[in-house]
Amino acid sequence: MRPEDRRTAEGILFTDQYQLSMAQLYFRQGLHERPAQFDHFFRRYPDYGIHEAGYCVSAGLEWLIDWMREARFRDEDLEHLRAQRDRAGGRLFADDFLAYLRRAGGFDAISLRAIPEGRVVHPSVPLTIVRGPLAMAQILETALLNQLNYQTLIATKAARIREASRAAMVLEFGLRRGQDRGANAGTRAALIGGADYTSNVGLSSTLGLPPKGTHAHALVQVFLSLGQSELDAFRAYAEVYPDDCLLLVDTINTLESGVPNAIRVFEELRAQGHHPAGIRLDSGDLAYLAIQSALMLDRAGFPEVAIVLSSDLDELVIWQIQTQIAQEAPRYGADADAIIRRLVYGVGTRLVTSHGEGALGGVYKLVAMHDGSAWRPAIKLADTPAKMTNPGLKAAWRIYDARGFATADLITLEDEDPAQAERLTLRHPDDYSRHRTFERASIAGIEPLLVEVLREGRMLIEQPSLEAMRERRLRDVERLDAGVRRIVNPHIYHVSLSERLWDLKQDLLAQLQG
Amino acid sequence: MRPEDRRTAEGILFTDQYQLSMAQLYFRQGLHERPAQFDHFFRRYPDYGIHEAGYCVSAGLEWLIDWMREARFRDEDLEHLRAQRDRAGGRLFADDFLAYLRRAGGFDAISLRAIPEGRVVHPSVPLTIVRGPLAMAQILETALLNQLNYQTLIATKAARIREASRAAMVLEFGLRRGQDRGANAGTRAALIGGADYTSNVGLSSTLGLPPKGTHAHALVQVFLSLGQSELDAFRAYAEVYPDDCLLLVDTINTLESGVPNAIRVFEELRAQGHHPAGIRLDSGDLAYLAIQSALMLDRAGFPEVAIVLSSDLDELVIWQIQTQIAQEAPRYGADADAIIRRLVYGVGTRLVTSHGEGALGGVYKLVAMHDGSAWRPAIKLADTPAKMTNPGLKAAWRIYDARGFATADLITLEDEDPAQAERLTLRHPDDYSRHRTFERASIAGIEPLLVEVLREGRMLIEQPSLEAMRERRLRDVERLDAGVRRIVNPHIYHVSLSERLWDLKQDLLAQLQG
Repeated sequence: MRPEDRRTAEGILFTDQYQLSMAQLYFRQGLHERPAQFDHFFRRYPDYGIHEAGYCVSAGLEWLIDWMREARFRDEDLEHLRAQRDRAGGRLFADDFLAYLRRAGGFDAISLRAIPEGRVVHPSVPLTIVRGPLAMAQILETALLNQLNYQTLIATKAARIREASRAAMVLEFGLRRGQDRGANAGTRAALIGGADYTSNVGLSSTLGLPPKGTHAHALVQVFLSLGQSELDAFRAYAEVYPDDCLLLVDTINTLESGVPNAIRVFEELRAQGHHPAGIRLDSGDLAYLAIQSALMLDRAGFPEVAIVLSSDLDELVIWQIQTQIAQEAPRYGADADAIIRRLVYGVGTRLVTSHGEGALGGVYKLVAMHDGSAWRPAIKLADTPAKMTNPGLKAAWRIYDARGFATADLITLEDEDPAQAERLTLRHPDDYSRHRTFERASIAGIEPLLVEVLREGRMLIEQPSLEAMRERRLRDVERLDAGVRRIVNPHIYHVSLSERLWDLKQDLLAQLQG
Repeated sequence: MRPEDRRTAEGILFTDQYQLSMAQLYFRQGLHERPAQFDHFFRRYPDYGIHEAGYCVSAGLEWLIDWMREARFRDEDLEHLRAQRDRAGGRLFADDFLAYLRRAGGFDAISLRAIPEGRVVHPSVPLTIVRGPLAMAQILETALLNQLNYQTLIATKAARIREASRAAMVLEFGLRRGQDRGANAGTRAALIGGADYTSNVGLSSTLGLPPKGTHAHALVQVFLSLGQSELDAFRAYAEVYPDDCLLLVDTINTLESGVPNAIRVFEELRAQGHHPAGIRLDSGDLAYLAIQSALMLDRAGFPEVAIVLSSDLDELVIWQIQTQIAQEAPRYGADADAIIRRLVYGVGTRLVTSHGEGALGGVYKLVAMHDGSAWRPAIKLADTPAKMTNPGLKAAWRIYDARGFATADLITLEDEDPAQAERLTLRHPDDYSRHRTFERASIAGIEPLLVEVLREGRMLIEQPSLEAMRERRLRDVERLDAGVRRIVNPHIYHVSLSERLWDLKQDLLAQLQG
């Protein structure tokens, strides 16, 4: 895309046409500056086909805020809108509306509360609550969903890969398989959700994290095409990177050529006082090759060098590799645990595309309108009770049981404080017969989940460091039941409504359906 | 992302670390300016799980070229590289190498041939051939794959949705489900591959195409929350957009509320001399609701207004909807064909994420190195013959049979001209026993597929218009056998090697394996 087009396509017009059609209608009705409140939430965990998530990890907020602070209606943008025609050839957007957009400028009047990035999050709980003038809050929808849905999807996938990888290092390699520059958002979310490092040089550099990567098959091919050998290529690599020598060993034949040549070079490095870093396996039966490579490396006195695995890895493949090593290693007299401990996972395509479920179905729903004197709750009807939205101005809480584990998320009305209640009744969101009651004494803690981020465009928080977001994620994941963390067939975490919210919802449904 | 970080993360450091590690090694070996040639190709069509593509549609080239012309090593980029350390604490990238990158600047020395955007393409055929100094051609890999893989994936999915939609209008709605700003690349590719319009305001505006969209459920909710009705919301819409009145009818109840209210408003519009545009169905049994809505609209004298369908559509869902309408409409005395003809498909998530296969596995492989006096072919070995690369400097051709249909793509050495041959032997790429022979007289045409785009950084072509790319796609798809166009279980299109290329490949394999 040409730079001038990028300013148009990535600015405030990074939105769907209907947001602008509706904004003009609100303007015409005099509703455009009425305060409105929208909730952003997702309805179900990602379902990857044969496995599904038991929790998500929120991400994307900082970049959304950065975008909101930059995005403004420029003259060029308004020209594009001025040029639009209806089917009768008339102007679609009138001058007075365009003048309003020019005046409104951007998202300076928007207030936003959000669950911070890196936190464990669940369906139906508002991740982001937007309050502001109806027209601009409406226009924000597309960019908000775009940023928060994708990064939350990828942070979630990364958390699953982290879970499957146990304590091993996970490297994100997906840049070439992402959607244009959007791949950077995938890298960022992967680092929040569970990847330790990335191969993405630019993004990693902006985060102050060293990018990771050594060489591709092309290096060995270059040497072969010039009449030299794999060993020559490895030696050249070791000469330039004696302290970072990690060799890709599957260009010709892993066990007959790659690993023996790597070991020769490692021996030469050792003789010079260097510590070789490892080998990378990128094709074939990775579990079998890891065992055999480990045996060869051990015999040569390199029990400490890493074995990096790559090639269409995801949480199930990693689990399978570990299982196979555990079963097969003893047959070769190898220590399965020691092999698993030296593995590093390079995860590309299946992380950046969230293999099996390529989108998080997060939505942005009107929950309240101000009528000039008071807030009026809004609801979205649907065929199934589970798809009805939760109306009104709300708050969200996490309840910890006596063990200190998260036992439920509770959605309440904004003016409720469950921490003050003697007894808490948690209602199932759409089944009246199901509820749980807690005595206050059985609850170790009740934590508000939403943080005030923007008040009429003004930032109220400092953006957290990557490290801080990762710590939140670690802390939250550790306080989940093992059943919820399971990568296949996880327990369903409870998300409940307060009795007052339940009653409001039923009242509104009865009104609208009656 | 902050603007200054975007310049870093979206510039020349939008690459994988190993490209830079290898580049420094080539520099150290004096190979960095040796001419090298890389082919970009994909190995198999997208496989969506229960259905797979029989052809792809190429896209992404223009944006890649735009990126290549902008991307340069700036001082800030070199500072990031200078800061990288190896495990022993030493500098990873030496000053002389960084000075070389500064001098090299960007991709000014790169030459590139490519199959133009919008053309039908097949596995193993080089879509892009890059020739240039080894170091910079290596560094280009990541961005090239990122741009061309994703856009080709989406243009392909859009072509399938186009195929399933027959002559109906297809609207792209996926902006909120893409990967950050990368969603714009999805929109562009969708428009090349088969979508008629998009809801994406910014991108559509840069292409000179009117964006499409009317209103969301939120509009009706706003009116309901303020004590007004769906009918009030529809009337407000009709007042602002009397000539573009397309109403979303499923906010309360499609057949009992939405469609009757829409018809009332349409009648009011008609009385004022306007032509209502249509209704949109976004939930429920879309085929059933389309039939019932069509009947109601027909009875009210609106047989011409469109019925827009949205909600997780893809090529299979569209096919199923048409099949159900064809079977079910007659039972209600409705004309199935007339209903199908008035449908418009709004396709979002499943198009922009290429539902079922979220990445195209395009690769970038070294095929030749210049040794100072001559080109030396390079090959990549692999466990299976199908994964071996085709070595050497090559050309690609499409062969049309007597009917004018594409019957095979042929990969040859660069100095071969199959158009001059009396007889053509087409070899299966990895099975010696399989080949086809054509007499020249049985061939209606032999067309070179690759076009010279960049010669040492200089553009040799004008970028085609969207219209021109769409015409190429239409023309190419029309010259495919019906079996290849099938959306489920397509015929395998033939991709063949010339005898000379086959022989070269076998010689190299024998050398390397012997």
